[in-house]
Amino acid sequence: MEEKNINTVPFEEDDKEVNSVIFDEDDIITPEKLTDLLDEKKYAEVKVQVNDIPAPDLAEIFFEVDEKYHSLLFRLLSKELAAETFVEMDSDLQENLISHFTDRQLSEILDELYIDDTVDIIEEMPANVVKRILKNSDSHDREIINKILKYPKDSAGTVMTTEYVRFTGDMTVADALLHIRRVAIDKETIYTCYITGKDKRLQGIVTAKDLLISDPDVLLTDIMDENVIAVHTHDDKEEVAMKLDKYGFLAIPVVDSESRLVGIITVDDALEVIIEESEEDFAVMAAITPGDDTPYLKTDVLSIWKSRIPWLLILMLSSTLSSAILAHFESALSAVLVLFIPMIMGTGGNSGGQSSVTLTRSISLSEVEFSDILHVVWKELRVGILCSITLGVATFAKVMLIDGLLLGNSAVDLSVALTVALSLSLTIILAKIIGASLPLLAKKVGLDPAVMASPLITTLVDAISLVVYVCVAQNVMNA
Amino acid sequence: MEEKNINTVPFEEDDKEVNSVIFDEDDIITPEKLTDLLDEKKYAEVKVQVNDIPAPDLAEIFFEVDEKYHSLLFRLLSKELAAETFVEMDSDLQENLISHFTDRQLSEILDELYIDDTVDIIEEMPANVVKRILKNSDSHDREIINKILKYPKDSAGTVMTTEYVRFTGDMTVADALLHIRRVAIDKETIYTCYITGKDKRLQGIVTAKDLLISDPDVLLTDIMDENVIAVHTHDDKEEVAMKLDKYGFLAIPVVDSESRLVGIITVDDALEVIIEESEEDFAVMAAITPGDDTPYLKTDVLSIWKSRIPWLLILMLSSTLSSAILAHFESALSAVLVLFIPMIMGTGGNSGGQSSVTLTRSISLSEVEFSDILHVVWKELRVGILCSITLGVATFAKVMLIDGLLLGNSAVDLSVALTVALSLSLTIILAKIIGASLPLLAKKVGLDPAVMASPLITTLVDAISLVVYVCVAQNVMNA
Repeated sequence: MEEKNINTVPFEEDDKEVNSVIFDEDDIITPEKLTDLLDEKKYAEVKVQVNDIPAPDLAEIFFEVDEKYHSLLFRLLSKELAAETFVEMDSDLQENLISHFTDRQLSEILDELYIDDTVDIIEEMPANVVKRILKNSDSHDREIINKILKYPKDSAGTVMTTEYVRFTGDMTVADALLHIRRVAIDKETIYTCYITGKDKRLQGIVTAKDLLISDPDVLLTDIMDENVIAVHTHDDKEEVAMKLDKYGFLAIPVVDSESRLVGIITVDDALEVIIEESEEDFAVMAAITPGDDTPYLKTDVLSIWKSRIPWLLILMLSSTLSSAILAHFESALSAVLVLFIPMIMGTGGNSGGQSSVTLTRSISLSEVEFSDILHVVWKELRVGILCSITLGVATFAKVMLIDGLLLGNSAVDLSVALTVALSLSLTIILAKIIGASLPLLAKKVGLDPAVMASPLITTLVDAISLVVYVCVAQNVMNA
Repeated sequence: MEEKNINTVPFEEDDKEVNSVIFDEDDIITPEKLTDLLDEKKYAEVKVQVNDIPAPDLAEIFFEVDEKYHSLLFRLLSKELAAETFVEMDSDLQENLISHFTDRQLSEILDELYIDDTVDIIEEMPANVVKRILKNSDSHDREIINKILKYPKDSAGTVMTTEYVRFTGDMTVADALLHIRRVAIDKETIYTCYITGKDKRLQGIVTAKDLLISDPDVLLTDIMDENVIAVHTHDDKEEVAMKLDKYGFLAIPVVDSESRLVGIITVDDALEVIIEESEEDFAVMAAITPGDDTPYLKTDVLSIWKSRIPWLLILMLSSTLSSAILAHFESALSAVLVLFIPMIMGTGGNSGGQSSVTLTRSISLSEVEFSDILHVVWKELRVGILCSITLGVATFAKVMLIDGLLLGNSAVDLSVALTVALSLSLTIILAKIIGASLPLLAKKVGLDPAVMASPLITTLVDAISLVVYVCVAQNVMNA
């Protein structure tokens, strides 16, 4: 509420009518136009056209342009833009480009990259390319890369960057600003800086804002924040990203077991992690093998088929269980009861799905842990009972009124409605408890909880709901 | 790969052995201990204990502590921490606290808040509280708040902040740094600054990094980036967040239809938007009414029930369709064919779900638009055919070998296996096309595409798969 002087900043009186400076994605040269220019060897014109395009958009253009032009087009980019664009490309394009690079060119590109980006690229490359990349990195970088590659999958260590600004506490604000001026160009962020002591032990943090508003002669020890929120190299990267979100940080320091600063994770990397992990959860929950992040329209049919068919096969095979149960209890379900199989199985699946998705997300957001399992089961039991009473009554009424009276099915009588309603109620309670506890159990034994929120749980609940249905039918109908 | 001088920063030789400065969440005072201290009126001790806790953690403590202590505890916080903590609280707590504030206290808190946070709070409050908040805001803020409240739901305008740093192009770097020094405390970020001309038209941007590494005498016009990526007030907030991610920005400017700068969206708000929208999509896909973001363990049973029961009821009722189809074609499905109903419906649901979740996410990530619908259907048709051939063959083999031979069901013969396999294949293709096109159609008519990825689509595909099944059965079995 402090922004009162927004209108007191003087305007340029002689402000000429400028065209809008706002970048418009529609103004980007089309891939077709670009290949025409390349065919006509109008390289100067290409240079003008592409060197103003932001790297992420340029990477998309590479995707659209035939591979044979890539190497040529890449050489027409300024060194900095080339590196930035390279980072944004998908791994197939990167691999293809690397195969066209000389060792010298590769080494130059690597020199321009931040180490965390190099690590990201390495993680997607086949062994021979990894070797070439490491061979063409300088020895200091190679050492860091090898260290980062050893951190466990999905840990903070694998996403951190080692290019941060580090001060010692005896520096003054003026020293610090001078130091930033000298090293800024090579750092991923200069906005949060770290004060370390002997052995690189973290002592405090200071922001660029602190530096800008403080007296130049003040010592960093006097202005640094000594209550540092940090994460450990082995922490889960999604938990780290959620922490950055929780505290609204631009970067969070990563320390080793001795509290030594080894890297930082910046907010843009956290954003990336959160988007990736959500997409993975969505894919797994929809029974799709998570792939790379190629946009849908650019993914070929065979890749989509490959990501979808394994689960469809598994789920098809696992439904043998339901068939076997039906076959075994064939006599228990009269023709009229068969009509309600879809409803009972569907409602069971939906109830279980609600609980498993809720718990899977709560686990992802670090809101719930395995130790909460009793608390969770107790809560789901009560929710399940409430839902089962509501739905049981509604189903009884629906079967009697809609299926019996309205649709005029003479086979629908009181015992049928009672059987259906009772089965449904029991199924809901069981489905909710199973749906809520399986993701927690999965997490406990080191599996992805999202797998439990997937149709796999539906298959399980399907089978259980059928067993409940036939048992209730046998008891009610024979009563 | 440039960080080579990391070890050349001199260490303090006389570095004393300090305890770890790393903040440990486990060291935070427990809510029980805190209420004891408050009961014993040890307010000085409480002050010491709470004023070092980060605001997000403090908000969690308020959640745990009985409401009767809130007003007292809140008054023991420093003004700044109080405001930060207030922003982090959930709306029920905020409303309760506001009801205990005098107008003067309320006005003081509002003064400390950024306008976008005030707007967030207002959006969750009942009308009488909104009136009180507006009455106690100063007139300039009130005007901005009212303007922001008028932007369409989920638009960039509703999440932007109006407290940014604005320069004119004729200022020098030194002027700019001096200006930052003066206003920094009141700005949400100082790291991206905006250069505007007459009428607040955006002319360029300059980062704090640019300012720090540039010569103090240089004019901003000479160093500003004139190729500005901006968004419009009416753009969808999720698209804006994805744009921030794509370009790796710390902030993105928001302009009106005349290219006038009206606000900025910072990366922490973008992160918030992405997390919220994903959670909403997850909820809708799991047939849950999205609620506020209260953690699962803190949500009461009745609220969970309320968020889950409407969809369960709708889905239960809509399954009447499946029952009616089965009732109508009762004679077409022999007892042995009934055994495969769960498999056919399940596989249909899973196939459709895969497509609808994929498309829903692609729409969320702005990868696909309604105009791509033919492209999408053509792709899904091919994927569907591939899947249906694979699964058709596998199902035929499975029914003959497992259900027929292994489980020894004598009723399973060639025509049964053929009926099941053929029905499954047709169902998959239909389910994929429906699953992929419905989210696009939903988007087109202004509905939430996620609703289409929800069990609702399963209900629809269930009905279709049954119709396919009985039609195929009638033709194959009678052939």
